[in-house]
Amino acid sequence: MVTWKNLDTLESYQELKNTARVNLKEVMSGENGAERVKKYSVPMAEGMAYNYAAKAVDDQVLEALAKLAKEAQLTEKFAALYNGEVINTGEKRLVLHHLTRGQLGDKVEADGVDKREFYLEQQKKVTEFANKVHAGEITNAAGEKFTTVVQIGIGGSDLGPRAMYLALENWAKKNGTFKMEAKFISNVDPDDAAAVLASIDVAHSLFVLVSKSGTTLETLTNESFVKDALEKAGLDPSRHMLAVTSETSLLAKSDDYLAAFFMDDYIGGRYSSTSPVGGAVLSLAFGPEVFERFLAGAAAEDELAKKENLLENPAMLDALIGVYERNVLEMGCTAVLPYSQALNRFPAHLQQADMESNGKSVNRFGEPVNYVTGPVLFGEPGTNGQHSFYQLLHQGTNIVPLQFVGFKQNQCGSDVVIQGSTSQQKLCANVAAQIMAFACGKEDENQNKYFAGGRPSSIIIGEQLTPESLGALLSHFENKIMFQGFTWNLNSFDQEGVQLGKVLAKRVLAHETDGALKAYSDLLNI
Amino acid sequence: MVTWKNLDTLESYQELKNTARVNLKEVMSGENGAERVKKYSVPMAEGMAYNYAAKAVDDQVLEALAKLAKEAQLTEKFAALYNGEVINTGEKRLVLHHLTRGQLGDKVEADGVDKREFYLEQQKKVTEFANKVHAGEITNAAGEKFTTVVQIGIGGSDLGPRAMYLALENWAKKNGTFKMEAKFISNVDPDDAAAVLASIDVAHSLFVLVSKSGTTLETLTNESFVKDALEKAGLDPSRHMLAVTSETSLLAKSDDYLAAFFMDDYIGGRYSSTSPVGGAVLSLAFGPEVFERFLAGAAAEDELAKKENLLENPAMLDALIGVYERNVLEMGCTAVLPYSQALNRFPAHLQQADMESNGKSVNRFGEPVNYVTGPVLFGEPGTNGQHSFYQLLHQGTNIVPLQFVGFKQNQCGSDVVIQGSTSQQKLCANVAAQIMAFACGKEDENQNKYFAGGRPSSIIIGEQLTPESLGALLSHFENKIMFQGFTWNLNSFDQEGVQLGKVLAKRVLAHETDGALKAYSDLLNI
Repeated sequence: MVTWKNLDTLESYQELKNTARVNLKEVMSGENGAERVKKYSVPMAEGMAYNYAAKAVDDQVLEALAKLAKEAQLTEKFAALYNGEVINTGEKRLVLHHLTRGQLGDKVEADGVDKREFYLEQQKKVTEFANKVHAGEITNAAGEKFTTVVQIGIGGSDLGPRAMYLALENWAKKNGTFKMEAKFISNVDPDDAAAVLASIDVAHSLFVLVSKSGTTLETLTNESFVKDALEKAGLDPSRHMLAVTSETSLLAKSDDYLAAFFMDDYIGGRYSSTSPVGGAVLSLAFGPEVFERFLAGAAAEDELAKKENLLENPAMLDALIGVYERNVLEMGCTAVLPYSQALNRFPAHLQQADMESNGKSVNRFGEPVNYVTGPVLFGEPGTNGQHSFYQLLHQGTNIVPLQFVGFKQNQCGSDVVIQGSTSQQKLCANVAAQIMAFACGKEDENQNKYFAGGRPSSIIIGEQLTPESLGALLSHFENKIMFQGFTWNLNSFDQEGVQLGKVLAKRVLAHETDGALKAYSDLLNI
Repeated sequence: MVTWKNLDTLESYQELKNTARVNLKEVMSGENGAERVKKYSVPMAEGMAYNYAAKAVDDQVLEALAKLAKEAQLTEKFAALYNGEVINTGEKRLVLHHLTRGQLGDKVEADGVDKREFYLEQQKKVTEFANKVHAGEITNAAGEKFTTVVQIGIGGSDLGPRAMYLALENWAKKNGTFKMEAKFISNVDPDDAAAVLASIDVAHSLFVLVSKSGTTLETLTNESFVKDALEKAGLDPSRHMLAVTSETSLLAKSDDYLAAFFMDDYIGGRYSSTSPVGGAVLSLAFGPEVFERFLAGAAAEDELAKKENLLENPAMLDALIGVYERNVLEMGCTAVLPYSQALNRFPAHLQQADMESNGKSVNRFGEPVNYVTGPVLFGEPGTNGQHSFYQLLHQGTNIVPLQFVGFKQNQCGSDVVIQGSTSQQKLCANVAAQIMAFACGKEDENQNKYFAGGRPSSIIIGEQLTPESLGALLSHFENKIMFQGFTWNLNSFDQEGVQLGKVLAKRVLAHETDGALKAYSDLLNI
């Protein structure tokens, strides 16, 4: 039986606050630093590792974090979640995205079915559909093969699948599994859909409409936009559109779609990349086998998140170091910095996953908490960021904890030797150099060229960004966010903060406003 | 004569701190709120306006900010800058990016030439070159027209030009001025160049190599990558490449390029979009006339930044409200939220411009300051962000000041009516709704659905995103950053914080490391 307590009521949290601060610059210098790099590393799935040598922790802090993990019952809470307890208490829902990629514990029954079976069945339907499209068994009305898939969705129905597509596009091209180009329409700004439509051949395009509720205004609006375009091109929209939705939505049984694949209320949008929300577009783009490999990577990483020993559980350790930085060391933001161009939208996906899950001021019982919770998260790929915002990260007045990601090999396999090293070596040399520059800084009599150091970072190192390692990365961060939510005693699985804006926007469109809202509406010519 | 003083030594800053705090929720409610929306607005160039009604200011705070502007001599310092004083004291350089788009004050002579004339001459060279390419007078070796332009650059040579290209791509297509598609290669990750090269027809592509020093490692590496590809395709690289660099760089006089256009040390990379760094690629993509219109918009907005009256100077007002929020109200980050899909990479450009300029801990004399300076800046376009990180912005434990941008009309001109409104109306209704939701919040007995409000935002409203309004927007933010740098007494025009990483990366590549740096290098197989 788990009990839900606020962070500041836990004894181990008080203990953590009383541990001695670690002088990062000092401990990372000399041979001691080399020892830390070897020792402070946790294996992840797919041969990856989470290395936290350059975090401001030592054995004492780690011991305090382990006590915190135990007192906060993180392992038990995760087990409660994957065994089907109502963890999303606000909306009275189970939280089952892990079941889309594996069975971590007990069978979970809901709505009268075994949910793992249900998700597998949906995945199978997607696989069969994608195979038929690739084989030319499902075609446009003229009997021609589809060449492009366009996802219409916003938020969780957009950012995750888009980031995963970009992460694997070049890998799939290199490895001969690239089937169809994918595009994404998300914004209600009509220029978004117009630009995507202008860039594709609609006659050979499949559109995947993704809305769990079937009522997302942006998505339905963009659907109409696309249907208009199809009709203007003399095409029958119902031959070009699929739906990914819940079984209870109006879209589920409509004749307007070639097929419908289902998710349910137990999968939050921001955790839906491993459901048909990601599955349909990724299976169509790269083939169902690639999507299965992605799921396998996520499932393997999920298994590690079950480990009770904090030092063997990379997601839990990452989570608790983050809490320590945020609540004890009082650092405000987090930057995610992948040294891989393919991960260029991965930070935007994590920005949603993290900030929408834990950007909350009340605990899971709706009571205000007395401590800070989820940080602002941002990031861009390195080395690009080095020529941009890293200035502030190195010498700014606030310390921003960093999460690097790096791979030993690139995806495309082509490279060039300049000044005695390949581009890939330069890329890796830069991330290694940055970690040390942030940790240890540099003395200089000229204060303008002085680097204080003491700026903590971790790095996840993998062999190559593949479907499996991408799945493992995604799982790592999803579970990290979950463990942080547990530690802060939040409900990480609702998002009431996005509702008010929707209500007011409807009022504006209905011209039912007064005061400042009317004044703004007038300025904007609505 | 201007004097440079730290913010916390200014009397007016102490006064500002002593002003009464404004209850944003209260002042934005009812008819008073409507009055504020009408009153708290400053005209910008091109029919735009900076509206700050939903910022936590009132007439008293504004008066204190006006005093601060005066005591900090912001107008005089700007004049010193555009009249050619050595404002970048660390590197002992003038700061002349404004001269690339207009003459704001005295003639500025440096390196024995009139710098305005010099920049105009470079712009003219770019114009002539682009016109010849468009007319088919400059072609590939086979006498065929170039169809694609690829910029090779990183940081300031990438983010700004890329954001501007994306901002005007659909506008140009709609308005019949679209000449050539543009692509961008920036990251030293070889997968970046490989993917771009795989997506284009190299035989009909022009490559613009951008490096002021001519020594940027990423850029030279990518140049080699591209030259290899051209040679493998049986093409002569010197028939396909241009350089944008300084006259003193090795690239300037090389025979490897079809043409070279010059910038100089007085234009920082992050302020170079209005120089040939942006000019070459944008003139080739959209025609020189479009680039000229972009410059005209920036020049018109620059003129407004000269105004002494704070309430008529949108960039200065925006800057000082930001300082008030950061230093007095102690808010940590800034989010830039354009309600325009075309501006989807504009926040990434501002992230560089702002964080690289003002992410510093020492004043312009190299002395540590006792107050916080530049904030973390991040953003994504609305309405996308609403379905993502807005949860934290509405209900998180930290307040993040917001900068909205919105336009009455879209760019592509196509739209669809759903549920009684167009997509464009929905887009605008959402931004109006968000401003009010952030400012006034919502009472609810269920604390989970409670919005505290009191979250400040401003909005820049324009008619449409055009070359002129884009130029004005860019100028606004550049000048805002400059005024904040003056107020914090920083040198906003150097970036010593990016140097240490470069030095260490070289050491890694030369295998001259020990300790933790060697251990990381080993882990990454370098």
